[in-house]
Amino acid sequence: METPNTDKSAGWITFDPELKIIDCTVRDGGLINAHKFEDGFFQKVYNTCVDAGIDYMEVGYKADRKLFQGDQFGPWKFSSEEDIRKEVGENDSNLKLCAMADTGRTILEDILPREQSVLDMIRVATYVHQLPAALEIVKDAKDKGYEVALNLMAVSAVTDFELDQALQVIKEVPEVDYLYVVDSYGSLYHEQIDDLITRYAKTGKTLGIHAHNNQQLAYANTIYAAIHGVKLLDTTMMGMGRGAGNCPTELMVGFLKNPKFDLRPILKFVQETMLPMSKETDWGYSIPYMITGHYNEHPRTAIALRASDRKDDYLGFYDEIASPEA
Amino acid sequence: METPNTDKSAGWITFDPELKIIDCTVRDGGLINAHKFEDGFFQKVYNTCVDAGIDYMEVGYKADRKLFQGDQFGPWKFSSEEDIRKEVGENDSNLKLCAMADTGRTILEDILPREQSVLDMIRVATYVHQLPAALEIVKDAKDKGYEVALNLMAVSAVTDFELDQALQVIKEVPEVDYLYVVDSYGSLYHEQIDDLITRYAKTGKTLGIHAHNNQQLAYANTIYAAIHGVKLLDTTMMGMGRGAGNCPTELMVGFLKNPKFDLRPILKFVQETMLPMSKETDWGYSIPYMITGHYNEHPRTAIALRASDRKDDYLGFYDEIASPEA
Repeated sequence: METPNTDKSAGWITFDPELKIIDCTVRDGGLINAHKFEDGFFQKVYNTCVDAGIDYMEVGYKADRKLFQGDQFGPWKFSSEEDIRKEVGENDSNLKLCAMADTGRTILEDILPREQSVLDMIRVATYVHQLPAALEIVKDAKDKGYEVALNLMAVSAVTDFELDQALQVIKEVPEVDYLYVVDSYGSLYHEQIDDLITRYAKTGKTLGIHAHNNQQLAYANTIYAAIHGVKLLDTTMMGMGRGAGNCPTELMVGFLKNPKFDLRPILKFVQETMLPMSKETDWGYSIPYMITGHYNEHPRTAIALRASDRKDDYLGFYDEIASPEA
Repeated sequence: METPNTDKSAGWITFDPELKIIDCTVRDGGLINAHKFEDGFFQKVYNTCVDAGIDYMEVGYKADRKLFQGDQFGPWKFSSEEDIRKEVGENDSNLKLCAMADTGRTILEDILPREQSVLDMIRVATYVHQLPAALEIVKDAKDKGYEVALNLMAVSAVTDFELDQALQVIKEVPEVDYLYVVDSYGSLYHEQIDDLITRYAKTGKTLGIHAHNNQQLAYANTIYAAIHGVKLLDTTMMGMGRGAGNCPTELMVGFLKNPKFDLRPILKFVQETMLPMSKETDWGYSIPYMITGHYNEHPRTAIALRASDRKDDYLGFYDEIASPEA
């Protein structure tokens, strides 16, 4: 069945088997609720991903417990091997598992040698200015036997001069298997995605994309990237993720034509679990996120607004962002 | 201030003064509530468009009263000159006004000579198979002195063979000022938009786009079209429109860089009027609309589902659409 889409004119009939979906619901969605999901939630996401033919599931962060103490965070802030195995056993499925290591918030000892872990991939998240520290985690994870992705965050606020230097460094690091275009602020239009893909492709790495939905462009930018050579596509169930959320898994499965995917388990899970949760937890496109996206700013101010008693004061918020006092 | 964006490399700094926004809130939004808006709603949309620098406002349909009798429809189903003037007087503003004439549902006598009307443009909506009847309305409206747009509906379900023949006919009709790419089912990806733009451009007409948001692509497809030469951009406040709704006016104003636009009046109106209305009236992206969009079907089945007591039975609806009984 695996007929690569090499003939562009047949693009609507064939599919690209190299296009992979990484469901980040627990990891990115957990940024809304400090990874305190209801009992059974992780298991349902896992089963849904397995049944739907999703390629990877991101289980959470590998955060340093010394930095995030007490009971303020749920288990997927730390993703211990023990907690993962409680949910997935030996992960006897075709679904690969990955975890995110935040540069500056991860201790290498928390990442076990791969043969002792059910994880398949470590994704290292970094700001450009932290790149040397990120590459230490990358090399350590690769030495331990994992697939390794490097996610360059917030590049919409980085100059091309700095970014190109970072990409030149990354090109020379063979331990980076996958390099991610990350639209942390949900501020990028497809022309900018195009420009970033072109720059990133010069590293020779297989590329991924992680988009946010501040301007209702997470899905559009992800399919644009997929059509233009990006292979790893980050999604979340019902778009659940920090702030305006992400590219919805259900839309992406609908778009890709690989017959291994099955939309039905996802629709069932979204209907039974995500929809009720969405009524109690605020995520997804709304105008405050549009405004921070448009101004290429971190969504933290919009998140704070949405958590306040003036959550829909669009005009007041706009005036604060567009015309800040000096 | 009007610096045309002719140099592509300066696209992020300059703007294209030929890009026009047509706010269709009352016309397309009225398809949800049979054009029965609260008193004062039209006036607020009008004032908002004037204050925001919007180019055109579509006031409603010019429907034949014999076909839509009784009190089942509000005034903007018919958009009589008297009703429009009650709201806008002589329309002493820079905002142009237009109305939509549905082919087969309009009588020519209802369209006054332009010098007797505050309307500036007539938009003729037609299915491809009705084209000869549509062109009669087009020619009549042009003879009466209006700007005239032709909106070819539901072309995602028309063969290229038929569409190209229609475009060949339209090319020879000088009374068509503007020709619209209409994604009635919200099923088109940007590659298809690109293909349609290329075909439509061969008519030599100035092009417009009217997108629906079934797959969260209304805004993305509209900006894609704008970047690729389409000049008239249909939007609605908070995306209000039939089914999954349209490209939101607030997003489009944020994207365009023409300094004549002002986002503030729109945010105020959305916050005070559209947001409360959205809690009582169902429009905008939801999974049933994603499903009809993905299957390139009219949203009527999804609209019926959303109006029923099983509005969020995504899986059941999917099974009905994806695996219909023979």
